[in-house]
This record gives sequence, structure tokens and C-alpha cells, in this order.
Amino acid sequence: MKHVKHMQLQARMTVGKLVEEMNAAGVLGAGRIGKATNVVTEMFSNSDCTVFLTLAGALVPAGLRRVICDLIEQEHVHVLVTTGANMVHDMVEALGYQHGIGTFAAEDKRLKAENIGRIGDIYIQQEAFEALEKWLFKTLDTIPEEKRQRFATAELLYEIGKKIEDRNSILATAARKNVPIICPAFVDSIAGFQLWVYGQDKTMHLDPLLDVNALMDKVYEAKKVGIIILGGGFPKHFALFANTFREGVDLAVQITMDRPEPGGLSGASLEEAISWGKIKPDGKSANVICDVTIAFPIIIAAVLDRLRRR
Amino acid sequence: MKHVKHMQLQARMTVGKLVEEMNAAGVLGAGRIGKATNVVTEMFSNSDCTVFLTLAGALVPAGLRRVICDLIEQEHVHVLVTTGANMVHDMVEALGYQHGIGTFAAEDKRLKAENIGRIGDIYIQQEAFEALEKWLFKTLDTIPEEKRQRFATAELLYEIGKKIEDRNSILATAARKNVPIICPAFVDSIAGFQLWVYGQDKTMHLDPLLDVNALMDKVYEAKKVGIIILGGGFPKHFALFANTFREGVDLAVQITMDRPEPGGLSGASLEEAISWGKIKPDGKSANVICDVTIAFPIIIAAVLDRLRRR
Amino acid sequence: MKHVKHMQLQARMTVGKLVEEMNAAGVLGAGRIGKATNVVTEMFSNSDCTVFLTLAGALVPAGLRRVICDLIEQEHVHVLVTTGANMVHDMVEALGYQHGIGTFAAEDKRLKAENIGRIGDIYIQQEAFEALEKWLFKTLDTIPEEKRQRFATAELLYEIGKKIEDRNSILATAARKNVPIICPAFVDSIAGFQLWVYGQDKTMHLDPLLDVNALMDKVYEAKKVGIIILGGGFPKHFALFANTFREGVDLAVQITMDRPEPGGLSGASLEEAISWGKIKPDGKSANVICDVTIAFPIIIAAVLDRLRRR
Amino acid sequence: MKHVKHMQLQARMTVGKLVEEMNAAGVLGAGRIGKATNVVTEMFSNSDCTVFLTLAGALVPAGLRRVICDLIEQEHVHVLVTTGANMVHDMVEALGYQHGIGTFAAEDKRLKAENIGRIGDIYIQQEAFEALEKWLFKTLDTIPEEKRQRFATAELLYEIGKKIEDRNSILATAARKNVPIICPAFVDSIAGFQLWVYGQDKTMHLDPLLDVNALMDKVYEAKKVGIIILGGGFPKHFALFANTFREGVDLAVQITMDRPEPGGLSGASLEEAISWGKIKPDGKSANVICDVTIAFPIIIAAVLDRLRRR
Repeated sequence: MKHVKHMQLQARMTVGKLVEEMNAAGVLGAGRIGKATNVVTEMFSNSDCTVFLTLAGALVPAGLRRVICDLIEQEHVHVLVTTGANMVHDMVEALGYQHGIGTFAAEDKRLKAENIGRIGDIYIQQEAFEALEKWLFKTLDTIPEEKRQRFATAELLYEIGKKIEDRNSILATAARKNVPIICPAFVDSIAGFQLWVYGQDKTMHLDPLLDVNALMDKVYEAKKVGIIILGGGFPKHFALFANTFREGVDLAVQITMDRPEPGGLSGASLEEAISWGKIKPDGKSANVICDVTIAFPIIIAAVLDRLRRR
Repeated sequence: MKHVKHMQLQARMTVGKLVEEMNAAGVLGAGRIGKATNVVTEMFSNSDCTVFLTLAGALVPAGLRRVICDLIEQEHVHVLVTTGANMVHDMVEALGYQHGIGTFAAEDKRLKAENIGRIGDIYIQQEAFEALEKWLFKTLDTIPEEKRQRFATAELLYEIGKKIEDRNSILATAARKNVPIICPAFVDSIAGFQLWVYGQDKTMHLDPLLDVNALMDKVYEAKKVGIIILGGGFPKHFALFANTFREGVDLAVQITMDRPEPGGLSGASLEEAISWGKIKPDGKSANVICDVTIAFPIIIAAVLDRLRRR
Repeated sequence: MKHVKHMQLQARMTVGKLVEEMNAAGVLGAGRIGKATNVVTEMFSNSDCTVFLTLAGALVPAGLRRVICDLIEQEHVHVLVTTGANMVHDMVEALGYQHGIGTFAAEDKRLKAENIGRIGDIYIQQEAFEALEKWLFKTLDTIPEEKRQRFATAELLYEIGKKIEDRNSILATAARKNVPIICPAFVDSIAGFQLWVYGQDKTMHLDPLLDVNALMDKVYEAKKVGIIILGGGFPKHFALFANTFREGVDLAVQITMDRPEPGGLSGASLEEAISWGKIKPDGKSANVICDVTIAFPIIIAAVLDRLRRR
Repeated sequence: MKHVKHMQLQARMTVGKLVEEMNAAGVLGAGRIGKATNVVTEMFSNSDCTVFLTLAGALVPAGLRRVICDLIEQEHVHVLVTTGANMVHDMVEALGYQHGIGTFAAEDKRLKAENIGRIGDIYIQQEAFEALEKWLFKTLDTIPEEKRQRFATAELLYEIGKKIEDRNSILATAARKNVPIICPAFVDSIAGFQLWVYGQDKTMHLDPLLDVNALMDKVYEAKKVGIIILGGGFPKHFALFANTFREGVDLAVQITMDRPEPGGLSGASLEEAISWGKIKPDGKSANVICDVTIAFPIIIAAVLDRLRRR
């Protein structure tokens, strides 16, 4: 039996060093951070490993846009599976709007009167979504009608990404790096409803079965698969289930605050995924029970540290 | 200031009476159950109120299939917005397969070897999904190719519902009662992947923008809107956002174990929804923080009691 | 493998019948409610079983005072292990003060200005505690100084209980029924600090080691032990650890919203207690993950129903 | 309105720099870490500020012993309010026993058979507690009987601390640094029950009212008060309530995974404490919702970094 090694802290220690301390402690939340860092390091340092990153929750509004973008830029992430909302927030920031620091104790009636939408303690002006609609309609007009006859969301997001000039945009970076953005429930986002409005007058048909194609191409061509699951939601299920067609993923990390006991998939442990063939029986996995905005930056900063030292 | 009235319990008390006690206590979880019962009673007893029920999490596997089915049968629920998984589980049960009582402490490698998939402490044989695929392919073949050229998921689920004979099936009951089943992310379900397989050889195109039509028809025709949100997920967002096109819902109840602080929508309070115009500023709402399989049956049994007494 | 039986609800169903439906469903939260009801029924119907009830969290303020009182009155509970706060709230209500229904969204600075203390969405006037101090000092004066030289908290609470005339008081009922109230951390309560103030001028010494005597007497004389743990805290540990001196308890139920993963005892599963000898390896237990104000009344109402039917 | 600044990560970044990024993001969990770091920095850098640290949960077993010890050694912490268990674990480690890295998925019956106690995923041999009893009895024998007639736990723990030679012991360091260890519920710990056994034959009386003295001395002499609350429990209440005698604390940080909604004090927000006069209306506070083993090391490492740079 390995012993818990007590952590030691000091001024100027690197995140990499802190995570080494956590890993040596080896238990509870700290131990999970340590293990997750080991698993992600293995994903990122194996050039045979296709890495899926799934996004659910307000990650872009919360300040993780650049982190996600850099992971794509640095070619650590090869497939993005995401809620529509995160892509909407990415577009809105590309248009120059910014998310604001608010409070959970907000008076929501007043926010409504001021045309501010609240996401936890994050504020965003409704004006941003009006600007998005204009920009989106203009952008859609530039896409040949033929494509709009039966569009994969992945293709649509690729086309959108090509039109964005912001270097810190996830959509733009993914388009440039040929990282597919899989978002079969894109219609469940503000932009999705805007597509619907656009489609009242003009040609606009989506077919999410085409997105399964895009996803399965990546699954079938992968030698090894690693997956980082942020927050759960349908992106978790979609990415994991696709991997049942290849005997499951090899390496998996999830970060979520949801509990397993109520039975929803977001809170389900990665062990459960083994029963379904989503994760290989001998795969390595780590369940981190933590706010994503805390755990993800720590783990990624520590992984970058380790990769540099190799 | 109203005072907390201490609950009193006795043998043979009805659920309705217990919830009255909780409502009179008026605080913490019990108070929320009381308030939610008031709000749902108002929804169900107002014939001008269109009631949306959204489903996320393993509700059908967990034993709530009949409860949901009865609410549709009794015309208390008029629109269903759901994850694909719950509809897959409904179909699988219609085919004669049953979910089993297992344990969270399962050895998942062994379950995999025995071809059993685990959902928390619920087990299901993989064989059920193989049977589903056969049945689904046969059923799809009977649907005119023209429809399959560009299918709303709502239409597809209606067609499937018409083919199911099980009186306890949600799909069958919804089809019979003309309750639309809105599931724009159906592709993220086992059946969704089976559609994709079917589409390799045969015609099969989905268009979730058509589902927005189906949903918006209900939103626009509603005089009042009530919504019951079980578990969160994209069904919560999809149903609530659609109602921003009519100034928000009038009455809302959500039951979830997710926390608000990490910022994901599933755990977000219904107050937050006011800022977005999803709920009317003067709407009534109740946030129940509880396992759905506990809170939902209590609330519904209490509501049925009250409706009977009127 | 037993199958999940779908719940059926109807108007006028009893809580007992609802819990039967939950028990037959057998999974997730509903299954846990079912199992807990079985275990508590077994405790209450076995006359050889000494039943410990442990209290942590704002149970009296939340409207459970009468429920707890009735369980003592009906001789279902034989030992109470509690935080000091719940006894303070019981005294304050005996003095005629009531807890008020407030809101979590309170402006706490304003409450302070109005001399109202907040417990979640429960309000209580500070005036109540001033009245308590007067009453307590007067009551202490009537207790012979000799006793106050070295007082077990259990004895002190017994003396206090004898002085309370309110039939709905937990302290009064426990004193009348000779149910010891074990509260070794009573000093950590408003009344505890008042004892300290009293002790500045007069004789007042507590000795919690005497409370261990009182607790151990009950442990040693028990043929079988059942325990119901509400909320966790030190009462959970104190009552369970005492039972390691008799090979552990036979029957155990806990209700808490705390999670196991951060490692605190309140959220720890009852399985963990087996490793420590706190619960017998072949003991029966149920972990209910739910707000106590929801789950406890359901379980108790269902148990009373079953006992009546025997 | 301040904007969310997107975090940027790089190899070799210090924890201090990471927390600056989180602070600039300013929302959700990351924002809370940033704010907590600001508040703790203010506590540690103001020489007029008396700092209380409260401990609940398995902090010593989880690898935080050294971190706590160093904070005392470096004179950043001036009063410790703790559960008995953490002091028991400190003693056991001083005797040379170590906590082991186990698993939540343990078979607890087997652990019991092997005389291993489990705390989440941490293991400890029961043998350690037998050794503790021997050592404790021997140590108690060396303490004059007069003291044992009426012992403050704080004094007892000071005497114990003086007998421990391990430089990494919290008890030893606190004794050396004259930091009182306040633990009025010490009797609710394994060592507490051992004191009770000792008291069967020899003189051993505790009086927790004396601990109120020790605590109140610190409260009354403080010019400013800062408090860091780890995990909640009675240490949170005891330390906060004592500060109502001086108009509340000035600076407060809590780290816990407990939720506010069920109404227990551990999960209660620090805003609620304002209504009670526990925190000054114009005090600064931060609620960090996170596993302590993750958040506490990050915050402390970042604070040390900032103190060094001044």
C-alpha cells in the first residue's frame, strides 16, 4: 500500500510542482487532479492518440475560450464535441462583445429590464445576440445554397470558422487546424433558433446524421483515443458512444460537479462507461469532481509543464 | 412574516396531506415541494395552459415511464421535450425488455463481459438494443421514402409511436394523444446511431429545424404556458428558449440535483431564466433540489389529489 | 435479477402506498427511500431494538420538531444524539418564539439591522435568544449547585426538559420518556455560550466524558441497535463510534445531501462504516441522498402506515 | 461592469500566476479562488489580524498536515479550531503510522477483516489507534492529577503537543508556537473515547467551558479577525459565533463542497453569517465551492507567492 505523502507548499512553486505534490498525496480531490494530469499527459504525448474534447456548461463565458483555443492551436486536441451555446459565445466574442463579471445574487427582473442575460455570475448584453443574428444571416448568404440544402453542423461551423478573423476564436482556430466541431444539437442554441428564422425565407436544412459521419471518421481512423469531458451533457454521451464502434477509448478524464447517484449521464462515473464498451476495460481514467474553471486550468498547466520537460 | 408550522405525520395519511404539511412548514426542501405542488396544480387546472414536460436523465429506466405516460393520457401534458435516451428506453420496454435492479458498486468489467449496460444502479441487456435495431429498421422500411428524405424527429417519433402497441408506452400514448415529442438531439442516442447505420444503405435524413417548427407551433398557439423540467440538459434550454418568443412561460417547476454554482444550465435557478425572458417577470416558479424519482412522484400524486377534490 | 416495476400514481394514495411503488421501482432515489423504509420498519417493529436518532442541521427550525417529538412519545426512538443548536431551537419555541418563513435571497445586512438571524430560508428574531438567556439563567439557579459542579450535558438537558411545559417540545418529551439527549458539543451552541456567561459568576462545569457514560450505558444494554442519521455531523460519528464497543449497529439509515467524495464523515457512505466496525458486516443499511425535510417525513409516514397494518 | 478576461496557460507558470489568471477571469469557481486568495493575502499581510483556521473533514489523512503545520510555524495562523479526528490523525502520524492510498470502491467487509479503517479512499490500520491508546495513557500519567481534575481540551492538547517530537506535527508546532487548539467536541474522537476509558480508573475530567475561555481570550484581544473555514462542521460555528462578541470577523474564506439549500451550517453561505453578526456587514468574504484538498493548496501557494513579492 502506497502512503499519503503530505503536500508542501512554497512561494513561486509552479503549477506542475503543485500537482506533483497533489499526485503524491494521492487521495480525495488532490489525488484525482494528480491522476487526471497523468492521463492527459499520456494523451498529449502519444502522437498516435486522437484526443476528443467535449464541452458542456458555460466554459467560453467563464474565461476558458483561450485555453481551449490554444489546445487546438498546439494540436493537442483533434476533435471538439460541444453544446451549441459555447460556439454561440465564441462567435459573440469574435464580434467584439465581452462577457461581464456579475453576481449570483442578481435581481433578475432588473437585468431583464436592462437587456442583460445572466449565466450564474456572468452577464451578457442581449444586444450581442442581435448583432450575431445580423452577422450570421450575412454569412449564411455567402454560403452556396446547395450546401444549405443539407448541411452537417460540422460543415456549417467550419464555414463560420473560416469567416472569423479573431485569432482567439475557437471556431476560427478549429477551422484553420481542421479540427471538426461536432455539435448535433446546435439547433438548441440561440444561433440554432436564428438558423430557423433564416430558414423561414431562405434555404437552410441541417442533417445531424452527417455529423455522425464526421465523428465516426475520426473514430475509425484513430489508433488510440483519449477523451477529456468537461461538464457532461450530450457531448459526453455522443463522443463516448461513438467510440463503442472501436471497443472504447483508451484514456479518459472527466471534470464535473454533478453527482452519480441521481442517475443522469453527466454525473455518471467513467467506470460505468466500461460496462457499455465506451471505455476499454483496461483503459485509464480519472473522475475529477470539481468546478471545471478550477480543475481544467490546473490540469492543463501541469500537463504543459510536463511536456516541456520531456 | 408567516411562521414555520411543524409537520405532523400519521399512519394512512395521503400524499396530498403530507404535501400540505410540507407546504405549511414552508421552508427548505419541504417548502419547495409544497410550492412546486401549488404551481403544478395551477398548470393542470387551468384549461388555457399548455404544459411542457422536459425529460433528461434516466427517467424511464428508473420507473417513471408509467407516470409520464399517464400524464399524457390524462391530458395534463401537451408537449414533451426529451433526450433521445428516454425514448430509446421506452421503445426497448415496448419490445418486452425490462430494466433490472442492480447496484452502483458493480464491477463494470464483469457487466461488460455479461453484455449488461449500467445506468447508476440500473441494468439493461445489450440484447435489447440489438432487438431495437431490427425492429427500428423494419419500422423505417414501412415509412414512405419521401418522408425519410427530410424528417422532423418529432414526425419520426410520431410514426414510431403509431407502430407501438404497448399501452404503457410514452411514444404510443403521445402519438395517440397528438402530443408532439420534441427531441432535436435524437441523433445522440443509441437509436440515433442506428438511424445513421440505416442511412448508410437507405434514405434517412433528419432536419432538427423542422422540430423547431413543431415546438414553435405549440409556443405560438399557447394562451398560457406551464413547464415542468426534470433533470435539465438540452431539453430544458430548448423548451425555455422557445418560450422567449412569447415573453416567457407563466408557471415553471424544475427538479434537479445539479448545483447552480458551476454555471451549467441544468443547475441554474429558474430566477436566472427571468433575465433571459424565458420566464415572465411575474411568473410563478419553484426550484426543487431533489432526486427526480423522489420528488416528481410526490408532487404529481399530491397534484392529482388536489385536482380530484376540486 | 429483479426488474424495475414502473410506479403508478393516483389521487388519494397514501404515503405508504407511494413508498411501496418506490420500493418496487427499486432504483435511484426512489429505491433508496423504499429500502430505508424497510430498514426503519424493522427497527421500530422489533422490541429488542434500541433506536438511536442523530440530528444535525436545522431540523427543528425546518418544521421537524413535532415529528421528532412524536417518535419519542411513541417510544420508537430511545436515544437522541444531537447538535446543541437543535436543542436551542426547541427551547426557543417552548418559550413561545416561532421560526419564520424567509428567503435564501435575503439581504443579510438588512436582516442584521432588523435583528433577524437567517438559517437558509428560515428567519428567527435575536430577541428569542435574549429571552432564552434569561430563562436559562433562572432555570440554572434552581438546579442545586452540587450538580453544576460537574454536569453531564445529558443531565443538564434532562433538568431543562423537566422545566419545559410545552407538550411539543423534544426536550420535555425526552425528559418525560427517559430518553437521554446526548450532546457532547453542546458548548458549541448559543445556549452553550450562555452557560459560559453564567459560569463567569456562578458554578457551572460540564464534563462531556459523563455523556460518554450515558451513551455507553445505552450501547451496552442494547440487544439490537438501529440508527437513523439525519444530516451527519459529530452526532453521526459519536453515535456510530460508541457502537464499535458492541460490534456495530444492526440496522442503519442515513439521510444527507453531502457527497462522499470530499472525504468528510457527513457524506461518507454507510458501507465505509463497516470497515470501522460501526455497522455489522451483515447489518442492513440504506443511504438516502436527499434533503432531510423531504425524505424523513416520507419514510416515517410510510413506516407508521406499515406498523398500523401489522 | 468588469469583463471576463480569458485565462492563458503556459508551461512553468507559477501557482501565483495561475491564480492571477483565475482572478482576472473573475467568475464561477475560478473567480472564487481569485477572491479567496485576495482575502487570505489581506489576512496574512496585516500584522494586526488574528487568523483563525477551522478544520473539519479528513484533512490530515488527506495530506494537508504539513500545509497546516507550516502555516502555524510561519505564524500565519494564530488559533486552530478543529474536530478531534484531525488531532487524532496528527498524533497517529507522530507515532510513525501513515495513512495509505486506497479506493472508494473498497470491499469494506474485507477491510474490516484486515483491521483497516477507511476514510473515503484513505486507509489506516486499526493498530495505529491501539498504539495511540498506549501512548496516550502513558502521557496522561505524566500530567499532574490536579490538572486532570478539570481540564480544558485546549490545555490537554497543549500538554500532548509538548510531548510530541515530530516537527511536522500540528500539535507539536502549535504547542511550540503557543497557538491554542480549540476542540470542545474532542470527546467525539477516538482519543476522546480513550480518555473516557482512562477515566474509568484514573482522574480525568474535561470542561469545554474552559475552552470557551481560551477562544474568547483570542477574540477579545484581536484588533482584526480573519477566518479560514475548511469543511464546516462545529468548528465553523464555534469560531464564528465566538466572534459575535466582537461585532463579527473582518475577513472570511470558506471552502466546502456542501450545498446551502438543505439548511445545514456547513453549506451555509458566508453572507448568511452577516445576519447573525458573525461577519461584519462590511467584511470581505469568499465562498469557495470545491474539494478542500484542491482549493486550499492552490490558494495558500498563491498567497505565499504574493507575500514573497511584497
